[in-house]
Amino acid sequence: MDSSRATRRARRPRDTGHLGTALLGGPPLRNSFKPLEPMSQDQLMAIHEASLTLLEEIGIEFMGKAARAAFREAGADVNDSTGLVKIPRDLISAALESAPGSFVLTPRNPARRLHIGGNHISFGLVAGPPNIHDGVAGRRSGNLQDYRSLIKLAQSFDIIHFIGNQPTAPVELPSRTRHLDCYLANVTFSDRVYHCTSIGRNRALDGIDIMAISRGITREAMAADPGVVTIISVNSPRRFDEAMSDGLMAMSEFGQAVVVTPFTLMGAMTPVTLAAALTQQNAEALSGVALTQLTRPGSPVVYGAFTSNVDMRSGAPAFGTPENARATLAAGQLARLYNLPYRASNSSASNAVDAQAAYESQMSIWSAVMGHANLVYHGAGWMEGGLTASFEKVILDVEMLQMMAETIKPIDIDPTEIAEGLKAIAAVPTGGHFFGADHTLAHYETAFYKPLLSNWQNYENWELAGGLDATRRATQIWQKALEVYEQPPLDPAIEEALTAFVARRKEELKDVDH
Amino acid sequence: MDSSRATRRARRPRDTGHLGTALLGGPPLRNSFKPLEPMSQDQLMAIHEASLTLLEEIGIEFMGKAARAAFREAGADVNDSTGLVKIPRDLISAALESAPGSFVLTPRNPARRLHIGGNHISFGLVAGPPNIHDGVAGRRSGNLQDYRSLIKLAQSFDIIHFIGNQPTAPVELPSRTRHLDCYLANVTFSDRVYHCTSIGRNRALDGIDIMAISRGITREAMAADPGVVTIISVNSPRRFDEAMSDGLMAMSEFGQAVVVTPFTLMGAMTPVTLAAALTQQNAEALSGVALTQLTRPGSPVVYGAFTSNVDMRSGAPAFGTPENARATLAAGQLARLYNLPYRASNSSASNAVDAQAAYESQMSIWSAVMGHANLVYHGAGWMEGGLTASFEKVILDVEMLQMMAETIKPIDIDPTEIAEGLKAIAAVPTGGHFFGADHTLAHYETAFYKPLLSNWQNYENWELAGGLDATRRATQIWQKALEVYEQPPLDPAIEEALTAFVARRKEELKDVDH
Repeated sequence: MDSSRATRRARRPRDTGHLGTALLGGPPLRNSFKPLEPMSQDQLMAIHEASLTLLEEIGIEFMGKAARAAFREAGADVNDSTGLVKIPRDLISAALESAPGSFVLTPRNPARRLHIGGNHISFGLVAGPPNIHDGVAGRRSGNLQDYRSLIKLAQSFDIIHFIGNQPTAPVELPSRTRHLDCYLANVTFSDRVYHCTSIGRNRALDGIDIMAISRGITREAMAADPGVVTIISVNSPRRFDEAMSDGLMAMSEFGQAVVVTPFTLMGAMTPVTLAAALTQQNAEALSGVALTQLTRPGSPVVYGAFTSNVDMRSGAPAFGTPENARATLAAGQLARLYNLPYRASNSSASNAVDAQAAYESQMSIWSAVMGHANLVYHGAGWMEGGLTASFEKVILDVEMLQMMAETIKPIDIDPTEIAEGLKAIAAVPTGGHFFGADHTLAHYETAFYKPLLSNWQNYENWELAGGLDATRRATQIWQKALEVYEQPPLDPAIEEALTAFVARRKEELKDVDH
Repeated sequence: MDSSRATRRARRPRDTGHLGTALLGGPPLRNSFKPLEPMSQDQLMAIHEASLTLLEEIGIEFMGKAARAAFREAGADVNDSTGLVKIPRDLISAALESAPGSFVLTPRNPARRLHIGGNHISFGLVAGPPNIHDGVAGRRSGNLQDYRSLIKLAQSFDIIHFIGNQPTAPVELPSRTRHLDCYLANVTFSDRVYHCTSIGRNRALDGIDIMAISRGITREAMAADPGVVTIISVNSPRRFDEAMSDGLMAMSEFGQAVVVTPFTLMGAMTPVTLAAALTQQNAEALSGVALTQLTRPGSPVVYGAFTSNVDMRSGAPAFGTPENARATLAAGQLARLYNLPYRASNSSASNAVDAQAAYESQMSIWSAVMGHANLVYHGAGWMEGGLTASFEKVILDVEMLQMMAETIKPIDIDPTEIAEGLKAIAAVPTGGHFFGADHTLAHYETAFYKPLLSNWQNYENWELAGGLDATRRATQIWQKALEVYEQPPLDPAIEEALTAFVARRKEELKDVDH
């Protein structure tokens, strides 16, 4: 106990001053709580059984020929004219047998290695929005400069463990080579695991190659020691597009991590009941998991879930809702039933970085963390249901994630702490206070979480200081973070190799239709 | 299973239109999750043992003579010159033996009865702030008009189950009779359980009498069927003021519910470590619990905890912190060890109804609910660490509490739901949608939580509609709620009796010094 306490204490964050505890919650972050489980064992098994029935009797459409060929060879009932694949349950069982329960992803900085599985938890930067917003310049289309700024922000906070797929889309760049500029920015401005865009085989392989070059190893060496991850989104209900299954197979072929995520808004892409939504989500996820294992048995794969609901009055997507939270907790039970790592999200539909953004994200974060998600996508910066990445939201989310990291760490209660505590209590008179007590002085520097964004001034001082709400304070914080940002060191020879690779690939892709 | 499902469905909220699902989460509300437990069994028992050592060897100061006499008679070691009471462990065991594990409080409307204990959960209106704030008139001192408006707001939302102690202090009224105006407003403008101010015996008894009159029963009849509750705050560290222990004894004598709450900010009123803070909090709470049982064995009592921390840089109180959340979850374990109902809070230190107010409150709400608190004080409206009650915060909190009520309800997964779901899934083509499907039409009206405050419009429509953030929308909602508020019916004879009682008591108290 003593040695583990010493380790925990040695790992306390160093206070970076300008950014509060910016270096808090770096990997490995682990969750010391047992998961929250909304389903009984009977309910869990009922969803499992219904999903297998769906896979065997109703089937999933795979538009890609390569995927259908793989399923056919493994004994599935494949209809090439409809694309429908009916998957027997022993094929699913075999896939679950070969899929690893946990794995490690290594980026160019080995200290940023991610452990994925068990009670490990990693948070990712916002991924995918076409737009960008900040409190100074307002809302605009994504572009490479903002892309780079978002990567720099991720690099500024230890709690952002990995880079998701395109934190904002640099829409001014040609779409067929845009992914190269993005990957290059990822390895230049950060030293973290990043996400490959798996729309087709090329984009996935380019992502693998750039990570390999940044680590000074070959694409083949990466297969045994993976470093990148992708999300395969299902075109729910029950359809995998060809580009997605091709991307999945490329990633699995080279041993990189695949997260299979049905994006299932209840009422739109699934029926409105949780029973039906979980059944469909689970069947879709399992079919993608199976394809990774048919491609390369033992390749790393993650059970992804993103089940929320629409507003039944307007059809608008909603996030951070009670239904979203319950589905997230329940999906964790399914992932654990299969001994697969689990991916969830931090999401909100709010159009402003306001109280709604905070409470919807908190609903997501609490359910993701207490549902034992191992990867939390969109951990920082996601707003408007994913249509916009926000600089202020990055800061707001970093604060909420850091708070959660503090909440889930193991609790320091042991005979020494208790004996010290009793002595400290006895030393202060009744009705007195502990401000100057020896015990307080010995512990106060590391006793409590030091906030990045929260303001605890009294009302009068807060008002005198400008009366800024949390959103306006967040503007000041991201500006300061970008101002003091330092690029992580990169070997000049590797930098040169990266530049050469991107130039060559741009030339090769010039005339390729996508 | 079928009949319980039918019951749950019959209890779906009716949509009141103007206020969304204002009538959601009314009693009885139950938590279907198992509690989150940060402490191991060893850690839990270590805190328990250390608290008993503190009670036996270090002692608690009781400034009140009546309290000391009760402890002395029961065999405690009492020092009248220091006020220090050292309490043997068998006295504590006996008290825990006689204290009920759960009980019921009945207000003038029996439909608003509160079940306190087990997995029941009840949320209270903000209690205690000297100031009031809203987005129209700004910040000001508490006053009777705002007091009444807050009671009306509580009455407007089913999720606010009870009225805490003075949602704001009507400071323009004479302090010796102010409690009478408050109690009268409570029973006039709401029909809920309310809180008695237990600063001395008189204020407690007046609160009991007014509840008794509103129910048409006697003070004595109330003893067997209690209807009011009080908080006994400990003047931590280790001191009960005379007014508080006298108030406690008056409430217990007449069989009303007492919540014993050490208000313990780590670093100020306790040492900085959680081990020490929990030990002290537990000893203080147990000593108060013991006094209720010495006064009247079997009288209803609640284990209260309010352990947060101060900002170690400034000494300012902080709420909704990771330390606060961990302490709240851990205190639930102690309450369950003693088979006592448990009280926690929804709190925030923010000076504005902003993202900070939302995330700090969410930290409090999740830890209170998942720590299985039975009473959540300050459920709606608390800001600035309790210095101000806010109309907008009431609305923000109501939304968050309603979302939590939806999250913790039992999950509808059974063979019928699953079979229906599979049929619905099979009926929609791959890549299609479920918007107009029969299954959707059959369920959509009650499928999802309908928000009060959240806005799910797309950005363009939201901007066209004024681009109001959640706080500004909250202003519109409380204004509308007060506009459509309807006073709950009250028998004119009872109304007359209440008025007469208050008039008589004001006359009696005219010359009484407090």
